[in-house]
Amino acid sequence: MRPVCVIGLGLIGGSVLRAAGAAGRVAWGATASAEDAAAAARDGHPIESTVDSAVRRAAAEDAVVVVAVPLPAVDEVLRRIAEIAPHALLTDVVSVKSPVVAAVRRITPTVRYAGGHPMAGAAVSGWAAGSATLFEHASWVVTVEPDTDVATWRAVAELALDCGAHVVPATAAEHDAAVARVSHLPHVLAAVLASAGAAGGPLALALAAGSFGDGTRVAGSRPELVLAMCEGNREQLLAALDDALGKLGVARGALASTGSLGATVRSGNEGRTALTRLQRGQRTLTKLDLTAAGALDQLAELGRRGGWITGFDGDTALAELPEIPA
Amino acid sequence: MRPVCVIGLGLIGGSVLRAAGAAGRVAWGATASAEDAAAAARDGHPIESTVDSAVRRAAAEDAVVVVAVPLPAVDEVLRRIAEIAPHALLTDVVSVKSPVVAAVRRITPTVRYAGGHPMAGAAVSGWAAGSATLFEHASWVVTVEPDTDVATWRAVAELALDCGAHVVPATAAEHDAAVARVSHLPHVLAAVLASAGAAGGPLALALAAGSFGDGTRVAGSRPELVLAMCEGNREQLLAALDDALGKLGVARGALASTGSLGATVRSGNEGRTALTRLQRGQRTLTKLDLTAAGALDQLAELGRRGGWITGFDGDTALAELPEIPA
Repeated sequence: MRPVCVIGLGLIGGSVLRAAGAAGRVAWGATASAEDAAAAARDGHPIESTVDSAVRRAAAEDAVVVVAVPLPAVDEVLRRIAEIAPHALLTDVVSVKSPVVAAVRRITPTVRYAGGHPMAGAAVSGWAAGSATLFEHASWVVTVEPDTDVATWRAVAELALDCGAHVVPATAAEHDAAVARVSHLPHVLAAVLASAGAAGGPLALALAAGSFGDGTRVAGSRPELVLAMCEGNREQLLAALDDALGKLGVARGALASTGSLGATVRSGNEGRTALTRLQRGQRTLTKLDLTAAGALDQLAELGRRGGWITGFDGDTALAELPEIPA
Repeated sequence: MRPVCVIGLGLIGGSVLRAAGAAGRVAWGATASAEDAAAAARDGHPIESTVDSAVRRAAAEDAVVVVAVPLPAVDEVLRRIAEIAPHALLTDVVSVKSPVVAAVRRITPTVRYAGGHPMAGAAVSGWAAGSATLFEHASWVVTVEPDTDVATWRAVAELALDCGAHVVPATAAEHDAAVARVSHLPHVLAAVLASAGAAGGPLALALAAGSFGDGTRVAGSRPELVLAMCEGNREQLLAALDDALGKLGVARGALASTGSLGATVRSGNEGRTALTRLQRGQRTLTKLDLTAAGALDQLAELGRRGGWITGFDGDTALAELPEIPA
């Protein structure tokens, strides 16, 4: 099993380090945060004193390097990798993919890279918040671009599987458009709802029951984490916001003119039903031959159809597809 | 303890009948639904064969009559009450209050009335979904209007307390404005989010994690229940929708022009913090003299400040107020 070098030991990086170790991999980390480094070392994990030394060891042992720093810090880490390990096998866990793909092409064009995004919690942060089981049953996107190397993609996917996740293949652009709708838009709508509710004063908050509690839950997340995530996906989030504004305007107009919210509420009910079906419905097992021509396109198409990879058998990827498409 | 006559035995009415009985009250019901009536009788509750006979018994025993039918069916029930029990002590549990207050003034002007709204679940319906504990720890609005009779208000509040709820006094208009923000707007935003997510296709739904699951939960409610609730509060919901559209437009504009969602996300975080503080923060005990001049105004002001009634001691209402106002 390929060793793992994790740069950045916050919630996600710290959990990758723990999960990779728990899966039996040789795994070490480094971080600019003295606090996280000390805590990780106290917990018995091998921590290199500098990012440079961690990356140097990764080059020597052909480890997969996991960049687990916030988006604004990615360029600086990539510059160290370009200098110390220009042919490293590289992935990242940043929640937006197009800017990272672009930075890798610009700064470390010779690495073997496939981007990653484990879909796991953002309400807490830091080493202490992580765990070896954070990714169990989670979706973990591993990006497929026209120039992605299949062996690299598989190496990154195997790390995600070892961490307990299933692997969703997607292009960076498709990933960013999807998470704008199901991860970033929910944060903006939760913020709007929480503000609008609080504007109703203490009486309104005293009458808040389940629907308001559920709808505002993620508004309790740390603002700086939410902002880093949402603002990093600006173009796609703008498109999702325009869609939401349009749908909300239609609802407003229909209520004002006809007194009916029927189309809005029924469409929302269908969307929620599609989610439940995709998450809990029957799934069909299928296989992909990774040595076939067009294997990358087939992976991307699998992701587009709501499918994911659950393991490998020789050169074959084992996959699941929803029986009834959403 | 005053007997209780419940007209309509769905989720809310059925739970009031059970909770009143569990509190030791003589309680009977009637419903136009043969299915609910049969189920309630099978469960050992006294069920009158017609609404007329249930109301006739209420007049004879001076019971509090609880109208627990959907808004469109309220007028017909009120017409029976006007004919059979024109001086009944009357309340209702409809989720919007101004239309019911208006209907009572129009159809049954001589009853003793205070409206009610227990803030309890709407995702399921029918007798079978109810329980004697549905209202435990819930807020239950009892309306105070300039012409409300204090003794009537108290009788309705005592029923709510017996059902395990705390009582929030509010005018019908203030209630409707508040629930538009914390109950109806959340349903519309959940519907919009669920549609916008599903529009991202199976890939988006496969990547949906906690924020989308929480934000769309109530979109899984039965559309006809959501529509009855939201459309019945049209004027106030339009105002809440305009506020949400404005805030969402501001977020969109800020992200497009400055790249920042800071104001939106921080305001949402403050709103969520205010909710948590109101629900879980320290509360101050206080008392209201129900025989004092202006007692109704004091009740309404208590509700406006996020306070509620937890019991009575002689002519004194025992109340709690949030220590730090939201």
